[in-house]
Amino acid sequence: MIDPSRKVLRPDKINKAVLQARHEVRGVITMKAQEYEAQIRAAKAAGQPNPLPFDEIVPCNIGNPQQLKQKPLTYVRQVTALIEYPALMQTAPQAFPPDAIAHAKRLLDSGFISGAYTHSQGHPEIRKDIAAWTTRRDGVPCSPDSIFITDGASTGVKMVLNALIADQTSGIMIPIPQYPLYSASLSLFQGATVPYYLDESKDWALAPGELENAYKEAVKKGVDVRALVAINPNNPTGQVLPLDSMREIVRFCVGHGILLIADEVYQENLYEPGATFTSFRKIAHDLLGDDMVNKIELVNFHSVSKGFFGECGKRGAYFQLDGVLPAARAEFVKMCAINLCPNTIGQVVLDVMVCPPKPGDVSYETFWAERNSILASLKRRAQLICDAFNTMEGYHCCKPTAALYLFPSITLPEKAIEAAKAAGTLPDTFYCLEMLRETGITIVPGSGFGQRLGTFHFRMAFLPPEDQIAGMTGRMAKFHAAFMARYK
Amino acid sequence: MIDPSRKVLRPDKINKAVLQARHEVRGVITMKAQEYEAQIRAAKAAGQPNPLPFDEIVPCNIGNPQQLKQKPLTYVRQVTALIEYPALMQTAPQAFPPDAIAHAKRLLDSGFISGAYTHSQGHPEIRKDIAAWTTRRDGVPCSPDSIFITDGASTGVKMVLNALIADQTSGIMIPIPQYPLYSASLSLFQGATVPYYLDESKDWALAPGELENAYKEAVKKGVDVRALVAINPNNPTGQVLPLDSMREIVRFCVGHGILLIADEVYQENLYEPGATFTSFRKIAHDLLGDDMVNKIELVNFHSVSKGFFGECGKRGAYFQLDGVLPAARAEFVKMCAINLCPNTIGQVVLDVMVCPPKPGDVSYETFWAERNSILASLKRRAQLICDAFNTMEGYHCCKPTAALYLFPSITLPEKAIEAAKAAGTLPDTFYCLEMLRETGITIVPGSGFGQRLGTFHFRMAFLPPEDQIAGMTGRMAKFHAAFMARYK
Repeated sequence: MIDPSRKVLRPDKINKAVLQARHEVRGVITMKAQEYEAQIRAAKAAGQPNPLPFDEIVPCNIGNPQQLKQKPLTYVRQVTALIEYPALMQTAPQAFPPDAIAHAKRLLDSGFISGAYTHSQGHPEIRKDIAAWTTRRDGVPCSPDSIFITDGASTGVKMVLNALIADQTSGIMIPIPQYPLYSASLSLFQGATVPYYLDESKDWALAPGELENAYKEAVKKGVDVRALVAINPNNPTGQVLPLDSMREIVRFCVGHGILLIADEVYQENLYEPGATFTSFRKIAHDLLGDDMVNKIELVNFHSVSKGFFGECGKRGAYFQLDGVLPAARAEFVKMCAINLCPNTIGQVVLDVMVCPPKPGDVSYETFWAERNSILASLKRRAQLICDAFNTMEGYHCCKPTAALYLFPSITLPEKAIEAAKAAGTLPDTFYCLEMLRETGITIVPGSGFGQRLGTFHFRMAFLPPEDQIAGMTGRMAKFHAAFMARYK
Repeated sequence: MIDPSRKVLRPDKINKAVLQARHEVRGVITMKAQEYEAQIRAAKAAGQPNPLPFDEIVPCNIGNPQQLKQKPLTYVRQVTALIEYPALMQTAPQAFPPDAIAHAKRLLDSGFISGAYTHSQGHPEIRKDIAAWTTRRDGVPCSPDSIFITDGASTGVKMVLNALIADQTSGIMIPIPQYPLYSASLSLFQGATVPYYLDESKDWALAPGELENAYKEAVKKGVDVRALVAINPNNPTGQVLPLDSMREIVRFCVGHGILLIADEVYQENLYEPGATFTSFRKIAHDLLGDDMVNKIELVNFHSVSKGFFGECGKRGAYFQLDGVLPAARAEFVKMCAINLCPNTIGQVVLDVMVCPPKPGDVSYETFWAERNSILASLKRRAQLICDAFNTMEGYHCCKPTAALYLFPSITLPEKAIEAAKAAGTLPDTFYCLEMLRETGITIVPGSGFGQRLGTFHFRMAFLPPEDQIAGMTGRMAKFHAAFMARYK
């Protein structure tokens, strides 16, 4: 026991904004899972029998594909290995296809040095590649100067919110449910949260009038609404916004002079046949033409962590600005400069994401085969789990159409709600903790994302290997039946 | 021109704390250098003659060794390449020494996945290695749980200051001169800066009574002094604190209940014959014994960016806590969780830093030869530049003993000070801009680090390749003579 009497970092003295921030994706459930994992390991090391009713933790609390055995794309790793150790071009050329070597060479020749600080916004050649890719994707010109590479999208989101929130009256509209990075950042920067609710009965679409109502209510309270966060495809709901809703959001932002934050990191994770991604940039340009730079401020986010790359550990992401004043852009340059630069390997993976092998390149077929196999498998896994959920008492799960998550609602019996209260936890947290304790399956309670009062949900990343899905849903169903029997 | 009338991100609306932050290491001089670089490139691309009086920018504004041709350590890159693309162990085993393969295998076997989010504090096996190394270095036990790996030390420093600064009365003592990350973070988090001055006449040592005076003055103003930052070896002065000063700092912190932030990222950059690094952890333990956990809160920082690794682009660093309450530690875990995890390759490089090849390993001799060659060359370069400075009129430069920087004082003529005022810049900034304009050499004015009123300095990273040093100091001397002639 450390004597707390003379400590500075004591709960009563620590910055309250820090104390208040919450992030359930790596919160109480995850910590409990880490404890169980340590118990299993310790028993094994001591040659003793496993004290727990499961052999391993199944981490479905987070979209972390490679932790659950998704293989990295071969071409990505060939390029990063060559960048790290270019001598391999001479000592082991046979171990690499010529297009991977050419890719690494092109970056190295452009002055990219993986051991050096790059430009604070990221290496110019890589930003040029991202800008060209963005221009092609949207049919709307994009400048390399508008791109800011960061160590993961989380860093960028925090940077943008930090600049936007001047004081406690600065309001940010966030969807409910939302990815808790937004609520945590709003706590950290002490801004006003302005929630707008997605409509579960309409597959989590935007309900008519919802934005205006949320806005009016905030303004009535003296909030200066400055930005709206749209997460599309959505985390945690796994749904895609209809184009009409996207247009409504853009018009709403233009009408009220609100900056639009478009979190589009799941843009490659679409599972409906023929589905294609439409960016808010493209929608804004369709509606406003080239005058969009005067009519709206738009910041969009993308990342190598999701999609079919799943390179979460690389912390490679960027945000891109449209319609933002040069003076404001300069502030972001400065904020990036304080961190010196984003990590270089994350930058390389971003470059591969926007410059994948082309038809005719040696790696083309392998790359696309690996991609298609990952996405097809994700789709099958999502459907299998969703189907299993919809046979379970009191579960309702929307058809999985995007992202890496299912977000079923669960009807909890009164007695379970009382038991949770007695245990001092929220009912959905209670349910998730019980599931973890009995199955080792780690999920995140809906309260971590926000949900309508009296409803309960959890978020589950559908990432366990395909051959383990049936066993896992079987264990969940068995747990759930016993839970319901206990508390009915 | 974008119409500013309806914009949210406008200088009058942006968070003032963001607007006020300054970071001169990548500030006005660097931006000017980027402009010149673009001009040279554009002329070259257009087949036109270079419009500037120099052929290239010499970036001495930042400690970025590999940008100036320092080679990465071979073993480091062999391990990172193998981690990125483990298939090379089968397809190109001849391209790697067995110890590099064994190192990569050990990390992979411990469950390290470079494409996956790790534990928010960093991969457990790597933290175990860092803890064991720290224990050996200090002779003081260190737990892996006390280590927090971050994307560069800057991220960690900001995290610690964010928790420490509860409101505008929370004071942080920083040395003057200091690395501007601290002043920038104090602006961002709106804390009270409590400067303590280093004594240039004593080779930037701590003057007797300085800490107490600075503390008393702050307390008189109503400041709640919470932490003291010590940078040792020092950036920007390039000096090492005598052991007596370190003891004084520890006693001061213990006496007033102040948390000690020990920025020790230059601990491998020592140039005096026989010099060894002593950490604040060791000093605190020497003075306080095992009771140090009750008597002091100590956070120390280390990084792969400096030393002889110079792997700045990897953004691999950590901070380590001693005597910090579990409840406070939990807050850092949560703050890290909001960012999900530090980048994985930075973690691997950290592991190599604390587990270099051992005697008998195949890579042992090469590793140490590369290390010694880098450090010996840094020492020679520092001395050459320092000697040149001390022949220049009005320059005074302390003997370079550590880090990567020289921080000479310069006596500027009255007329130059007036010319700076007329140009609307500070005198030292004026001098640095003039030098950049005429020589392409990029340095950082002392005002970016803090200096006593009426004195002028600049910081120069002594990193240009050895064969270019004489030419560079020659150009600086020529510029300086002309500058003095112009303004005398």
